[in-house]
Amino acid sequence: MAARTVKLAVIPGDGIGPEVVGEGLKVLDAVAAQHDLAFETTEYELGAQRWHRTGETLPESVEAELAQQEAIYLGAVGDPSVPSGVLERGLLLKLRFDFDHYVNLRPVRLYPGVSTPLAGVAPDDIDMLVVREGTEGPYAGAGGVLRKGTANEIATQDSVNTRVGVERLIRYAFAKAAERPRQKLTLVHKDNVLTFAGDLYQRVLKEVGAEYPQVSVDYCHVDAASMFFVNQPGRFDVVVTDNLFGDIITDIGAAITGGIGLAASGNINPDRTFPSMFEPVHGSAPDIAGQGKADPTATVLSAATMLEHLGVPEAARKIENAVAADLKTRGDEERSTSRIGDDLAARVAEQG
Amino acid sequence: MAARTVKLAVIPGDGIGPEVVGEGLKVLDAVAAQHDLAFETTEYELGAQRWHRTGETLPESVEAELAQQEAIYLGAVGDPSVPSGVLERGLLLKLRFDFDHYVNLRPVRLYPGVSTPLAGVAPDDIDMLVVREGTEGPYAGAGGVLRKGTANEIATQDSVNTRVGVERLIRYAFAKAAERPRQKLTLVHKDNVLTFAGDLYQRVLKEVGAEYPQVSVDYCHVDAASMFFVNQPGRFDVVVTDNLFGDIITDIGAAITGGIGLAASGNINPDRTFPSMFEPVHGSAPDIAGQGKADPTATVLSAATMLEHLGVPEAARKIENAVAADLKTRGDEERSTSRIGDDLAARVAEQG
Ligand SMILES: CC(C)[C@H](C(=O)O)[C@@H](O)C(=O)O
Ligand SMILES: CC(C)[C@H](C(=O)O)[C@@H](O)C(=O)O
Repeated sequence: MAARTVKLAVIPGDGIGPEVVGEGLKVLDAVAAQHDLAFETTEYELGAQRWHRTGETLPESVEAELAQQEAIYLGAVGDPSVPSGVLERGLLLKLRFDFDHYVNLRPVRLYPGVSTPLAGVAPDDIDMLVVREGTEGPYAGAGGVLRKGTANEIATQDSVNTRVGVERLIRYAFAKAAERPRQKLTLVHKDNVLTFAGDLYQRVLKEVGAEYPQVSVDYCHVDAASMFFVNQPGRFDVVVTDNLFGDIITDIGAAITGGIGLAASGNINPDRTFPSMFEPVHGSAPDIAGQGKADPTATVLSAATMLEHLGVPEAARKIENAVAADLKTRGDEERSTSRIGDDLAARVAEQG
Repeated sequence: MAARTVKLAVIPGDGIGPEVVGEGLKVLDAVAAQHDLAFETTEYELGAQRWHRTGETLPESVEAELAQQEAIYLGAVGDPSVPSGVLERGLLLKLRFDFDHYVNLRPVRLYPGVSTPLAGVAPDDIDMLVVREGTEGPYAGAGGVLRKGTANEIATQDSVNTRVGVERLIRYAFAKAAERPRQKLTLVHKDNVLTFAGDLYQRVLKEVGAEYPQVSVDYCHVDAASMFFVNQPGRFDVVVTDNLFGDIITDIGAAITGGIGLAASGNINPDRTFPSMFEPVHGSAPDIAGQGKADPTATVLSAATMLEHLGVPEAARKIENAVAADLKTRGDEERSTSRIGDDLAARVAEQG
């Protein structure tokens, strides 16, 4: 029997979700065996199918069960047959908010062997960590509509930013920056236009920064940062930013490092008051679902982020090494989803 | 004497602003001579210097004078010595809002000969027109701060979107799309999270779209669009989007088409109730100010957008042709700001 058993909730979700999660679990099992770990998984049917069948996105009883788990592993949710926003606000963002996932952690790293759309960029040039806010800002859901459907209609959308929320995020980002060789932290915001929220971020950055004299601090407007991600990605180490800006720049980050097939993320509650949730950045890609065409790498890498969070960094490194080795030797040959999963599991096993 | 005299307000601004505007005016004069046009310019000192000297960003009397002009030609405003937001909100955005520049028009076009950071992209692959909202959305300036400086501080930032504002923008975008060979319009928003504002944009898109059956309509979340700008820029023709998303994606657009040294923009009031304003997308670049190092091309191209708006499209085409020819033959040789201006003016003159 394993020394430690981790209670893991699995939400395969829609589209390619079940396929990629299946491979992620395969790799997790391979690495668990080597670290005296076991995953006790419970699968939850949540997503488009459940919504169509029952009208539910996240029943209270299910959420209560999820709250008892140690971590959540999610494939992807969403389908064009569901109105935009229903599953996002009712399931994905609800979990992020209710479980206080205030750090949305997204590594942006170009692995050797991966082709980037950028000319003349080498793998060493892109290695950043985006620390995106996950529980407030423009994602708060605040706002409303007046006189809907009339010529006088007004729709508002309010970004809510709290000192508590910004400070805990920025503290986390400084701690991460301090651990990395370059020790650089860049705040991305738009403080010349969004003056209220931007000023709060700037003041907290300065205050918390005083506790980290070894970390060099930089600031970039989101428009400039988006440009620099494309033409000077090397200038970033750790990036801290709000929920919406983080959503945008991490997709640019994915684009420059080989696409969302490789981009991992962790929705993290650093205080561990609720389980954290790990998921690829990509969506459910219904167009290729069930065909064994999806690349499970992003989901596998999200499992590495999970292992890090669970306090087993050596196991996380093994998964990253396996992925790095796999990407380095990828040729033109197309492999199926499960074949990539098998290969990654084997590469993990090799590191025995 | 010229048949038509255009009253043009010139705001050289800060940093490289005066240098690039000087070259823009040089090229404008060259083209005017050929089209029986004359520009009667009035220069306005607005920007960081005036603010330092007088504490004013845009005095009422100056704004009233500007309102009487036919168009405004602006270099760049801003300096690190001025607190972030002061000139943006007090001058640039104030003009855009007060003069009802509800279309912020930004062509994103890769000219032959220009190097892009994207590998394997040919000039024909990138030719889009971004129609960005300019008078509302997250730029409204609405919001506030409660309990500033305390642990309970809250900062809000409200996006205000009106039916009137969205409809006139989308109408403009459809009209532009209908004129172009590909006749494609893509709405960029984030309707799965910003559900109130996103839904308004979607409903108006559908309604106005019914009047343009020949235009094919697409929708992209801003995060996905930001990625596609990098790895599939060819999928966009005309893009319509809100103020903040437009700010971000047009900087990505600039990055993929040779940098902000080439990106032009027009802040347009299509109803002509106030003068429109033309400016490069770049800022005042104080680090290279006064050294003759700035590329005036973006400012020159903004003059082409102005001529188009003034109803002299043949003159606009001449400037674009001059720029295209210049870019095509650029070597490694560095030319000064005024040398590039001279060369462009000469190329305009050649077209006689
Ligand atoms: C699906 C959507 C709600 C989500 C977001 O906007 O955060 C996604 O784009 C992401 O980045 O995880
Ligand atoms: C300077 C700033 C206020 C402005 C904006 O955000 O619109 C600039 O970035 C632009 O794109 O013209």
